[in-house]
Amino acid sequence: MAIAPSANDLITRAAKLDAEDPLAHLRAEFDLDPDVVYLDGNSLGAPPRRVAARMDDVVRRQWGGRLIRSWSEGWWTAPERVGEKIAPLVGAAPGQVVVADSTSANIFKALVAAVRLAPEGRREIVVDAATFPTDGYIAHSVAEITGVRLRTATVDRLEAVLGERTAVVLLNHVDYRTGRLHDMAAITARVHAAGARMAWDLCHSVGVLPIGLDALGVDFAVGCTYKFLNGGPGAPAFLYVPSALQDGFDQPLSGWGGHRDPFAMDPEYQPASGITRARCGTPDILSLLALEAALEVWDGVDLAQVRAKGLSLTGFFTECVDTVLPPGTAEVLTPRGTDRGHQVSLRHPRAREAMAELIDRQVIGDFRAPDVLRFGFAPLYVGHTDAAHAALALADVLAKE
Amino acid sequence: MAIAPSANDLITRAAKLDAEDPLAHLRAEFDLDPDVVYLDGNSLGAPPRRVAARMDDVVRRQWGGRLIRSWSEGWWTAPERVGEKIAPLVGAAPGQVVVADSTSANIFKALVAAVRLAPEGRREIVVDAATFPTDGYIAHSVAEITGVRLRTATVDRLEAVLGERTAVVLLNHVDYRTGRLHDMAAITARVHAAGARMAWDLCHSVGVLPIGLDALGVDFAVGCTYKFLNGGPGAPAFLYVPSALQDGFDQPLSGWGGHRDPFAMDPEYQPASGITRARCGTPDILSLLALEAALEVWDGVDLAQVRAKGLSLTGFFTECVDTVLPPGTAEVLTPRGTDRGHQVSLRHPRAREAMAELIDRQVIGDFRAPDVLRFGFAPLYVGHTDAAHAALALADVLAKE
Repeated sequence: MAIAPSANDLITRAAKLDAEDPLAHLRAEFDLDPDVVYLDGNSLGAPPRRVAARMDDVVRRQWGGRLIRSWSEGWWTAPERVGEKIAPLVGAAPGQVVVADSTSANIFKALVAAVRLAPEGRREIVVDAATFPTDGYIAHSVAEITGVRLRTATVDRLEAVLGERTAVVLLNHVDYRTGRLHDMAAITARVHAAGARMAWDLCHSVGVLPIGLDALGVDFAVGCTYKFLNGGPGAPAFLYVPSALQDGFDQPLSGWGGHRDPFAMDPEYQPASGITRARCGTPDILSLLALEAALEVWDGVDLAQVRAKGLSLTGFFTECVDTVLPPGTAEVLTPRGTDRGHQVSLRHPRAREAMAELIDRQVIGDFRAPDVLRFGFAPLYVGHTDAAHAALALADVLAKE
Repeated sequence: MAIAPSANDLITRAAKLDAEDPLAHLRAEFDLDPDVVYLDGNSLGAPPRRVAARMDDVVRRQWGGRLIRSWSEGWWTAPERVGEKIAPLVGAAPGQVVVADSTSANIFKALVAAVRLAPEGRREIVVDAATFPTDGYIAHSVAEITGVRLRTATVDRLEAVLGERTAVVLLNHVDYRTGRLHDMAAITARVHAAGARMAWDLCHSVGVLPIGLDALGVDFAVGCTYKFLNGGPGAPAFLYVPSALQDGFDQPLSGWGGHRDPFAMDPEYQPASGITRARCGTPDILSLLALEAALEVWDGVDLAQVRAKGLSLTGFFTECVDTVLPPGTAEVLTPRGTDRGHQVSLRHPRAREAMAELIDRQVIGDFRAPDVLRFGFAPLYVGHTDAAHAALALADVLAKE
């Protein structure tokens, strides 16, 4: 395509920003086709190179060579061990994060436990009306099975439903559709002031910015590990329960993985002390250990730098879009302030077709029905040059429609 | 060690039986150290060779190369596709088996659904008093959260608790401790005659013998895939719901994976038709596709031959034990009739130490507290010579204690 002078300026600026990027060296940790501009790490993170070799070791040596012995050589305790690698990314002291099951299953555990912990009279669960669907589905199910009421509200109007009947509020830290980042500190404080528990879904914020679960006194948090943490497709999710709540954490998926002494084959369920009681069945080792390898990429990475680069990338991409798209072509849904995650969402009536065309051109973002184009910027492997190229490709695609 | 004449006879007979084994060629499908006698496939199956290569393809090409596109190129539908590979092993017509989550989570889904399906007045869940622990733990949790009563009984005395208040009976097809195989046809008929639903846990029987879920009208079945199916440590479990019950299958782990149109991002949960509604969250692709590769080993394998060989192996091992151990040394817990799975359990006061010593000698079985030695015989990769060597090693270990 022809490159306008303004486009050339953007590419020059991008190259300068990339040259100054303190995280640029991390791109080499990932196994990504250099011809691809990958902007869907908010949905599926790219594979860290070390994962393939680790999987080979797990299958051939740990499974094939050590066989059953591996269960006592690091497999059985992998959910807690891998949890400890996530803990610093969410501001949790040791012993409070476990990796097990899916985000949906962990929401089920947390919400049922929250309802059981609630003082008498607090018989309502509140969820964001714009929540990622699975959170709402599970909250509905928990309300049904525990006999409490489910209420929905927009995050900006929580006070409309928050009150003395609220047991727990479940919110997404970053809105999956718009990319808006909610104020965790302010909202947690407001929910606590109302006497309710706060549960955060961190799927779209873990690996995006420093999070302070302990510091803010958050009651429960869940998150997936296959977006900005790059754990692999459908990698197991995590669950955070602070130490102070663990003794009272009575979760219904009480499989043998959460038992105090699973190999005693006790006929009675005796929950383990600590975060282990949040486990359910036999841990899924291949996926867990792939995730463990993926998380090693975060060792020594400064989350403040990650956040600064993510804001720079998303801000620069938005600026590129403003510059190269004719005014009124696409609406930017993502906040232009710092209240955003590491994605930019654009609304366009032909979003579906435009994204298909971009993907054909090796610029990979995603589409969310009915009319949203999403571009995710994972600071560990995306640069400003990628952002500039994506915006130019988008302008070209939309100009041809 | 010195080999007695009787021992030589056993080894000679073993070699002859192995030479006549129609399944002997399958041993080459597995990545197992030739110096190891692996008799713990009832706990963790050995790795099929093709798994390592498949994992490499999944990580490098499907994840790294195709990235997010792989979700629509076979990942999202993997739970049902892999379920179809299990279906013939359990006697299920297509569309009734899905692979998702853990056995424990699937028991939770099935039991809650069973309670919800039960006619008014049927407010009791029955489990085997000797059940594998996690089944009992989850049944207890389901009873608590749904407000029904949990009753336990031995399988031989089910009539003591079975009646007009029974909603559902959950039993293990093979007892994990003794290796006893229960009569699925007779018990299912008895439970149905009492007007209750029958749920089978097939963890220790799938891949052991032909199972006829459809033919027997079983209502629900669950099972793990990491024992005789060799899916890998903690591989995802399966859930069977027959077509006739699917429309009424109302399970509480209603994540977006079970939605009719998950990518429509519908705020209301609308369960999919068919077995898909038994799914919960995002499927765990690395583990699922490792399992898919592992299941390919079963293509064209005759389950009747598997069963015949398993009975031969376990019978021969028991005979070896009878021959080489001084009388009264160890009690054989496993039935000597055909009412057994593919394991032999021996009781010995120093079982723990004896198994540790056996493992040091590369004869790998396992120990179950307080005093049980378990030896599993997976017909796809274990031979009669392995059985003879294991019995001889055991005799030697116990003679030295």
